[in-house]
Amino acid sequence: MTLIDGIPADVVSANDRGLLYGDGVFRTLKRVGGVTLCWARQYRKLAADCAALRLGCPAAADLEADLARLPRDCVAKIIVTRGRAERGYAVVPDASPTRIVTSSPLPTYPQSHAALGVKVHLCGLRLASQPRLAGIKHLNRLENVLARMEWDDPAVAEGILLDTEGGVIEGTMSNVFCYRAGVLHTPDLSGCGVAGVQRERILDFAAQSGMAMKVGTLPLDALMEAEEVMLCNSVIGLWPVREFNGRIWEMGGVAAQLRQLMEERDD
Amino acid sequence: MTLIDGIPADVVSANDRGLLYGDGVFRTLKRVGGVTLCWARQYRKLAADCAALRLGCPAAADLEADLARLPRDCVAKIIVTRGRAERGYAVVPDASPTRIVTSSPLPTYPQSHAALGVKVHLCGLRLASQPRLAGIKHLNRLENVLARMEWDDPAVAEGILLDTEGGVIEGTMSNVFCYRAGVLHTPDLSGCGVAGVQRERILDFAAQSGMAMKVGTLPLDALMEAEEVMLCNSVIGLWPVREFNGRIWEMGGVAAQLRQLMEERDD
Repeated sequence: MTLIDGIPADVVSANDRGLLYGDGVFRTLKRVGGVTLCWARQYRKLAADCAALRLGCPAAADLEADLARLPRDCVAKIIVTRGRAERGYAVVPDASPTRIVTSSPLPTYPQSHAALGVKVHLCGLRLASQPRLAGIKHLNRLENVLARMEWDDPAVAEGILLDTEGGVIEGTMSNVFCYRAGVLHTPDLSGCGVAGVQRERILDFAAQSGMAMKVGTLPLDALMEAEEVMLCNSVIGLWPVREFNGRIWEMGGVAAQLRQLMEERDD
Repeated sequence: MTLIDGIPADVVSANDRGLLYGDGVFRTLKRVGGVTLCWARQYRKLAADCAALRLGCPAAADLEADLARLPRDCVAKIIVTRGRAERGYAVVPDASPTRIVTSSPLPTYPQSHAALGVKVHLCGLRLASQPRLAGIKHLNRLENVLARMEWDDPAVAEGILLDTEGGVIEGTMSNVFCYRAGVLHTPDLSGCGVAGVQRERILDFAAQSGMAMKVGTLPLDALMEAEEVMLCNSVIGLWPVREFNGRIWEMGGVAAQLRQLMEERDD
């Protein structure tokens, strides 16, 4: 099921700026039993990302009406683009955004991914630093595409990306956390990377449970010395990392504790 | 007129990776009297850009057949995307590219732009360095969109972009040259920027006429001290810069000489 501006359709204008320039943002959401998980946070982040690109954000009520027409259990995707364009980069003041809401089946990842952890590739591509776009889930995703091309071993579940300074930033489709000496670490995303909603939830929940946290630069060496490494996004939830860059991790308690919080709470 | 895979249509799949990720490349070409200017070079660059993204390039004959159906005088745009996708960044091995060929009217720029030069804005946005994407005319163009938002004065014809080191890289829609002390300079584009076909022609023609040239880093200070500054692309041809960053330039002979070469030669 795909809705374009609320109308069932599966095509967009060949002149849409989303296609021409990647001029838009998106969200990936999980629907379970007819409920769109973490909707309030997802909408807040969508609105913030639209504002960062000076893009009109659709009304929450319109998106909620669209989402309610999707299957009760699915992965939902929302795309908001700057709409149709004349030729050229200049934005027409009265440009009307395009709102795309679409669904795909919930993926069937092996149970072991969450229970025993995953094998992860260290990507060779380094993320470029662009503070004007950092954190935003925008449609310019060629770095992710090129990074994902680096492996085709189905046993590898994700790839971790560094910036040009060698700092850990994120997975190709997930955010990264690690736990070391009593402190939960996650990379600062002010130069590059996508600041996902599950990352925000983990930071909030960990703070509320009194866990020590640090958001900052995370050199690869520091990640390798961590007691636990974890990946999160809205579809996978949280996966511990079992194997990465020549090291094997045993299952630890912090990942299980965070996953329990993520599953129990609906905010 | 828009052709999608050779068929008249003005829409593409909402699951096209060009829209989802900006996973594709494009070319902008000028058609005059039924002739697509610099077609051989344009196709070589399209094929090279496709190869850089491991994207299947349409056959030249298919694109030529599409172009022949466009108006005799127009701006033609070719977009090649990685085609329709399953969810996720991974590329399906048998993905079939989408080929989009579309036309828009030739723009009517003031005669004075080429004859007397243009006023140019110094963009505040700094281009990120990503060697894996540098030079490629790909569909991830949010930096250009944000840069173009920096001015709305219709008297300003273009904006010049620097990299994070303060080096001049390009215009939002053009390449930059300057002439100083007998040498024609243009920025090295191995870190960022789009290497356009007119830039390549100017470098070839200048070399053949025995002009001294340097492709390298071009600090803003050096540009400001140049005797002539010029912008080029396939639609505008070549415009001298008259006013930029607080300086006014008088018309010089090198711009006129290069424009003459560009107009005389069809390779």
